[in-house]
Amino acid sequence: MAGGAGAPGETAEVRAACAAYWAAADARDWGAFAATLADGLVYDLPQSRERILGKERYVRFNQEYPGDRHVRIERIVADGGGRQAAVRTLFTVGAEEMHGIHFLTFDADGRIVGVTDFWPESYEPPAGREHLVERY
Amino acid sequence: MAGGAGAPGETAEVRAACAAYWAAADARDWGAFAATLADGLVYDLPQSRERILGKERYVRFNQEYPGDRHVRIERIVADGGGRQAAVRTLFTVGAEEMHGIHFLTFDADGRIVGVTDFWPESYEPPAGREHLVERY
Repeated sequence: MAGGAGAPGETAEVRAACAAYWAAADARDWGAFAATLADGLVYDLPQSRERILGKERYVRFNQEYPGDRHVRIERIVADGGGRQAAVRTLFTVGAEEMHGIHFLTFDADGRIVGVTDFWPESYEPPAGREHLVERY
Repeated sequence: MAGGAGAPGETAEVRAACAAYWAAADARDWGAFAATLADGLVYDLPQSRERILGKERYVRFNQEYPGDRHVRIERIVADGGGRQAAVRTLFTVGAEEMHGIHFLTFDADGRIVGVTDFWPESYEPPAGREHLVERY
């Protein structure tokens, strides 16, 4: 991933790197997964204020994560600057479905150096806006 | 916003459009807010499966939203393709802070034609991963 701000090639590379990361996670191919990561990766979970420092721990965290998780990419937003992306996923764990939102940052070699995950839960709509909204 | 895939100018325009949208929302300047939106805007809240159709209803939804909300942009990911972005925000409503995540899509004129919002809540870390994580 060469320097410069926003060449189309960089956007495509970021998009491909996101796809490779999730494909490896879904396949539980931890060698391929680790190959997408920089050694100094920082993983943040703002909802629980948890942080994991380093690629080795982050790979273990994923290996040890309980349940038979599968993931499908819903949307990739690959920044024109070539160093960050946002990804929407749909995780299934058995019969349960979960939305995942992931902000990734990349180093100059195209490796993932930062991951911030959000896991938004379903909720019932608050009262008072039925005149404006539909349900789906 | 001209055609073509991923010119740096488009990334900058998308970034500026995101900033204008949130600045208008924060200022409760509904004229400026409406000016960033396409008439056919679709607003989705996947967590509650609510949907709002059309700019007029969406502006009203924001006008009628209870509480003195203020918003700060934490991160903008502006796609190299020039038609979508992901934004992380921090909302404050009185003393309460809330993470917001927003996926925006743009029409050919640079107006917002799709908004998908997520509101992830805080949670306690599950047991069993203390050997890998730190708290912050």
